[in-house]
Formats: sequence, C-alpha cells, structure tokens
Amino acid sequence: MSSIDIFFEPESIAIIGASRVPGEIGYEILKNVKRSFKGQIYPINPEVTEIENLTTYNSISSIEKPIDLAIIITNAKEVSSNLTECTKNDVKAVIIVSSGFSDKLLTKLDEQIKNIRKSHKMRIMGPNSLGLYCNTLDMLYLPKERLKRPEEGYISFITQSGAIGATLMDLASGEGIGINKFIALGNNIDVNEIEMLEYLGNDMQTRCIAMYIESTQHGKELIEHAKKIIKNKPIIILKAGKGERGAIAAEAHSHHHVSLSKIYSAAFEQAGIIEAKSTDELFNYAKSLANQPILKNNKIGILTNAGGFGVLAVDETVKLGLELPEFAKETIRSLKLIPSHISKENPLDIGGDATADRYQLALNGMLRDKSISGIVCIALLQTPTLEERVINVIRESKLHGKPITVCMTGSDYTKKFATRLEKYGIPVYSTPEKAVGALHVLLKYNKILKKFK
Amino acid sequence: MSSIDIFFEPESIAIIGASRVPGEIGYEILKNVKRSFKGQIYPINPEVTEIENLTTYNSISSIEKPIDLAIIITNAKEVSSNLTECTKNDVKAVIIVSSGFSDKLLTKLDEQIKNIRKSHKMRIMGPNSLGLYCNTLDMLYLPKERLKRPEEGYISFITQSGAIGATLMDLASGEGIGINKFIALGNNIDVNEIEMLEYLGNDMQTRCIAMYIESTQHGKELIEHAKKIIKNKPIIILKAGKGERGAIAAEAHSHHHVSLSKIYSAAFEQAGIIEAKSTDELFNYAKSLANQPILKNNKIGILTNAGGFGVLAVDETVKLGLELPEFAKETIRSLKLIPSHISKENPLDIGGDATADRYQLALNGMLRDKSISGIVCIALLQTPTLEERVINVIRESKLHGKPITVCMTGSDYTKKFATRLEKYGIPVYSTPEKAVGALHVLLKYNKILKKFK
Repeated sequence: MSSIDIFFEPESIAIIGASRVPGEIGYEILKNVKRSFKGQIYPINPEVTEIENLTTYNSISSIEKPIDLAIIITNAKEVSSNLTECTKNDVKAVIIVSSGFSDKLLTKLDEQIKNIRKSHKMRIMGPNSLGLYCNTLDMLYLPKERLKRPEEGYISFITQSGAIGATLMDLASGEGIGINKFIALGNNIDVNEIEMLEYLGNDMQTRCIAMYIESTQHGKELIEHAKKIIKNKPIIILKAGKGERGAIAAEAHSHHHVSLSKIYSAAFEQAGIIEAKSTDELFNYAKSLANQPILKNNKIGILTNAGGFGVLAVDETVKLGLELPEFAKETIRSLKLIPSHISKENPLDIGGDATADRYQLALNGMLRDKSISGIVCIALLQTPTLEERVINVIRESKLHGKPITVCMTGSDYTKKFATRLEKYGIPVYSTPEKAVGALHVLLKYNKILKKFK
Repeated sequence: MSSIDIFFEPESIAIIGASRVPGEIGYEILKNVKRSFKGQIYPINPEVTEIENLTTYNSISSIEKPIDLAIIITNAKEVSSNLTECTKNDVKAVIIVSSGFSDKLLTKLDEQIKNIRKSHKMRIMGPNSLGLYCNTLDMLYLPKERLKRPEEGYISFITQSGAIGATLMDLASGEGIGINKFIALGNNIDVNEIEMLEYLGNDMQTRCIAMYIESTQHGKELIEHAKKIIKNKPIIILKAGKGERGAIAAEAHSHHHVSLSKIYSAAFEQAGIIEAKSTDELFNYAKSLANQPILKNNKIGILTNAGGFGVLAVDETVKLGLELPEFAKETIRSLKLIPSHISKENPLDIGGDATADRYQLALNGMLRDKSISGIVCIALLQTPTLEERVINVIRESKLHGKPITVCMTGSDYTKKFATRLEKYGIPVYSTPEKAVGALHVLLKYNKILKKFK
C-alpha cells in the first residue's frame, strides 16, 4: 500500500475550518463529505458545538482518536500552525484547500512542507487544491446544485487547475459519462502529478487517465512512469501554457516555470502519451478511450441516415488517414432487405426514412464484415421514421467487440438518447468530425501499444 | 420584388400529397404549416375529405383560387405530373420535397424543370428539398417534439443538406440561439444557392448568412454576389466533400461533381467569405458574427474566475495572433476595490471567490479601457460565491459596443444561464478556446470589410 492510498480510502477525516454558514467553503466541503463518506468525520471549529448534526472539536489534538486525513480550509495565515498540529497528532495525510497565499507566505509554506517530509510520513496535497472526488469521498466545495456529480465510470482525472477539472466533471455528468477519480492537485509541493499518475496506473477501476497540466518539474519521471502505465491503460494530457503570454499566465497561476510546448509534445510522444490539442479533444477522446476497445487498423465503416453528415465524416476520415474499405460480398448480400435505391457501399447512407430495423441490418452486416475494424454510426433521431429502439440496436453493437462511436446532433430529444448511450459506454458526439476523431484516437492508442510492447 | 420572395411570403399554400397519418411526411408538413402559416392552406388528397380540420381538394385544378406556393410530397414517380398541373394553374412557386429518385427519373425531372422555366415564371425548389423555415412558415416535416424550433434571430442558413441544416437549427434552439430563415435547397435545378444568397443579402432581418455546400456550379456568381453582400453582412461557409472519398460521397448525395477543396478555399478568400473548417466552427462563428459588433483590432482583454481557463484562453489568443495589451493606468485604478492579492493585469484573474460585483468592476474597467477592443469573459458559475446576477452584469456590457464572447463550462445549472445570455445576443461557449476563436472571427470580418471597402 502506497502512502497515496490513504487519500482515497481514509477511515476518518478531520475538517479544519469547518463552518456552519452555507455558501462558505468550510460548510460546503463538510456537507459534501458528510453525504458521500461513510467513515468518521471530525469538524474542527472552536466557536460552535455542532455543524449539520456532527459534534465539532476545538482542535486536532482534542480529538484523541487516530485521524487518517485532515482537510485544511482555514485562512492562508493559519495553515502553517494547522500543519504543525497535524504532524503532532500523527495525521496520515493532509489536503490544503486554502488559497490566497502571498508569494512570501507560499515560500515559507513550501519550506515547512519540505521539512515536515524529512521527518514525518505524513503526506500533503496542496495548497490551492480543490481536493478529491470519487465514489466514496466527495470533498469538493462546489455545491451539488451547481455542479452535478457523475456516476461511477472509468475515466480518472488529474488536474493542476481545479476549475478545469471540476467543470469538465460537471459537463461529463450532464452527458451521462462516468468518472472514477478526480484529483485537483493545486501546488504540488509534496504530493505531485507523478505519484498520482502512478497511483491511477495501479488502480484497477481506472481505464483511462486524463490530465491537465501547466508544467511539471518531473519530466523524466513522467516519461518513465507513463511508458509502463500505457501498456495497461491510455494516458491523455492537455498541456496548457503554450503561448509566450500563456506561459506567463500559467506561471502566475501555478507558481512554476513553464517550458516550451514543443519539448512537452516530444516528451509525450516518447512516453506513449496521447496529447490533446484542446479542452474539447481531452474530453472527447477520454470518453472514447475509457469505454471502447482499440481500433485494430485504419479500416472503418460509416453508417448514416443523413447524406451531408456522411460527407463530412468521410472528409474527416480522409484527413486522419483512415480508410473506407469496400464491403465484403457477404455483407452486401446481408443488406438485401434495405431498399434497392440505396447503394450498398461504404459509407452506407440508409436514407432519411431509415428505421431502427434498417439500422440493425446495416450494423449487423458491418460488424460481421472482417474488412471493417470499427464503425462511426451517425443517427439523426429527429426524422419521424426512426424509432427510439435504435438506441438499443446501437447499444447491442457493443457485444461484437469492435469499437463504435456515434454522432447525434440536436437538443433535448436527441440529448436524452445520447445520454442513454453514454451510460452504456458508447461515446456520442454532436458533430461527425468529432465522432471520427474519437474512433481515430483508438487507432492511435493501438499504435502506442504496439510500439511499447 | 424578386421571384424568390414568394417562397417566404406566400398568401396561399397547396400541399400536394397531404396525409392524415401521423408520422408520414405529408401529415407532418401539413401540421407544421398549419401551426405557423397564417394564409390559406389547401391540402390535396383525393382520398379523404379533411385533414386536421382543413378541407382537402382532389387536385390543384379543383381549387379555383390563386395559389402562391405548392409543396409536392408525392411519390417520385408522380412528381412530373404534379409539376405539369402546377404550371397549368399558374402556381407561382413550387417546393419539391419528394425524394428517392432513380438516376433516370432525376434526369427526366431535370429536363422537365428546365423546359418549364423557358416558358413559365414559376420557380421551383428541389427535389430532395427539406424546404423552408422562418417565423411565418414552418414546412419542415421533422416533428416539433423531436426537433425544437428556434426563436427569431439574426442567422439565416442555406444548406445543400437538409439534415445538417435541420439538426444545427435544433442545436441552436436548445442553446437559445435565434434563427431567421432556413433554406434546405436539395437539388438546385432551378432555384439555386446563388439566388438564395442574393435574397438573404437583401433581407433586412438577416445579419449573418451561414451556408453548408458540397459543390456549386456557379462559382463565379458566388464570388460576385458575395463580394457585394459581405459589405453589409458576413457570409460563413462550410464546404464539405474535401477528401477524395468525400468527393465521391458528396457526388452520390447531391448528384454534382465536386471540385477540389483548395479551389474553393481560394475562391472564398477572394470573395471575402469566411470559411468554417468544421461543423463546430460554422455554428460557433455564426452566432458570434450575427450578434456581436466587429473587433476593431487584435487587442483584447481576458477576464476569468478560473486560472486554468485563463491560461488556455491565452494560449489560443497567442495562436490566433491576438494580443493582450497592458491595462491603462486608469483601468488599474478603477480595479482598486478588487482584493490586493489579485494582480491587476491582462489576463485578469479575479479569483475563485469572485462575486458578481467583482465581475462588474472588472468588466466596467476593461470596457472603458481604450487599449482593449474586445473581451473574452470566462465565468465559472459553479463556485458558491458567484451570484446569478453576474448574468445581468455580463449582459449590460453589450451597451458599450465592444464585442464580447463568453466561456461557461458545465451541465444543467450552467446551461440554464448560458441560454439566457444567448437570448440577449451574447454568444457562450463551453471551452475557452472556442470563446477566443469566436472573438477572433469578428476581427477576421473587420479585415474583410476593410479589404472590400
């Protein structure tokens, strides 16, 4: 068991700076921990006797029971003495949520944390950390009414920006995409992105690691660890702070020097890490990588009930170096129940009047066709002939073991069904270009697997 | 008055092939026309006496009153005789929705339409046309329950793919984005994209023309007309059928030869047309171009309550050649009420605990700063300290006449407020990169205006 495990599986949590005022961070964290965490909770606040029916304590030392994890939410100036108290009481791990440190105060804290680590086993995350989120511990201060919590899934997320991580989690929840663990590091004075990466690499529940980083001081370790991890699960990273001014902004934000983006890109490639070029790509690729099998080769099939979308999908296919092989004769034969005016070729446009039955015929044919390794399925649900049953038809295609990504474009009606597919682990995108890109990234990962075998 | 006007302002509409069976195109169109259109409606169906409380007619000739517009929804084989009947009864305009034509049948129809046009004033859209949508006439067959209808806005859309147009309209409706006119041409044997472009160019209600095309046989006219129109309103085009296979798919879909994408790109530039590289860009740029003033120069300001998002926005700013000038001294002075640990520089990160008041101070300062021509405003609404009032604060910034684009990322809670801003004409994006791109396109249009002055 590594010293990181305790962050995710504590048996007791002390909340230093717990508050009874709704809207305050010390209240929101307590409320969310209480709702999610089944172990012992010790709110620390010398001014009140209870918060949300939990007895409060004056200080860490007054608890007199072992504390696995302490969350510090106090004023920046008080953090140092809070930390000292934690070391005296054998707290195993600390997350410092507090922010608003002056440069001077941050330098002092940095020194203190490094000194603590010389003589104590206590591990420390933060400061400026948004903390953790997983199925058994939600310590985010962002209210549930404003930021939806996702169902349990296979993507885990390490982020140097709490805001980016949290809002992407919100976005994921809205679309029905599952998240496993969320880690917002803040300043990584002690616990850093490498240790978290290693932890998630060994975590059986995590199938895809997504990261947002602005800089790292541990480039070599990142490459070393990634090379091992990517044999078991893909790593996808969005590196920010690329532009000159971006570098300055990133520096102000994370108090680290930011190296050039090209060096990072080269390092990522060397390590078998998939680099996302934008927030959109990070999000869109992660949900495909976490839920779909690899794409064996560049031969794919496109199925659509809308000609124009098919054309756009083919454009993207060509752009990304994917190919659209001809259907096997057997496949064409299996499509004979599809009206004769529809040409039985790849891309397969089954017409604006397509039904769920026609989708089923087409999907079954394409899934059995050995010349096709993966499918982009475009389904415009707005046409009056297409029954809701098409969702089950698409869902069942998962059983064939070939990767599939879906394009559905629209508002309420369409999104309701897209969410249902996402819950079954089939990634849905609002444009054909994104659906093709999400299939292509599964080939990219396959190539990485082969390279690092 | 051009011969195109009658499509949008008919006083009477005949629906040839009206049906009383819900789910059938002939029923869905009738239902939507009846709901939206205030003039006279003549359903034509010799087998029933009424549909949805409207008296039906046996044929066009049995109506004995002038007919401005006829919509043909019959079987492909019947379309030819329907057309002939329309010419005999002085119908002014026809939209052929019917599809499923064999190559042979299409060639014959092509000939017939060209012959009709030699001797008649009757204008003909289609076949394979999804028809029109505007505030006073909704003739789409896609049910309202599946495809939301947008509020009236400033974007008008010409599309060679009905599906792409319709689903983007659905997407727009879901986000609160207004649409003015929607035209799905189908095969453009008579009425073509150039005439529609000219019509929208003269249409006072249209402020931005968005187009999806797979090919045009009228390249020179497109350039000529566009050059004039873009002096008054921007034109943005997504050209599909780029890849070799894309060209084949586009050909199969629209029965036209597809030229090379590079020739198109060069022509678009020559004509002052903004080219969208993806469905996403078409959508994201159009809502900015239709609702925001131009960006005078490349000097912008970034405001955020989330450091990481600020870094990503700066990256995109640098990538697109935009600049982040220093704030004027006066601006810095005006920000003195913002806590001292926040550095008063561009990009301005007002902290994770920012309130609506802090946004107001910052926005007012930046909007008055003469060194800044436009603003990207990032607002993460999930933080407990940020009040809903921030929406009004952002809305009021419109009064200053500087362009503004907004980034808000999240699910239900965030989207509710994003929709509200869209209704006020402030475009909202789910990633900082898109918000910066949407501001940048306003500079692009400004450069076009200068070039074609």
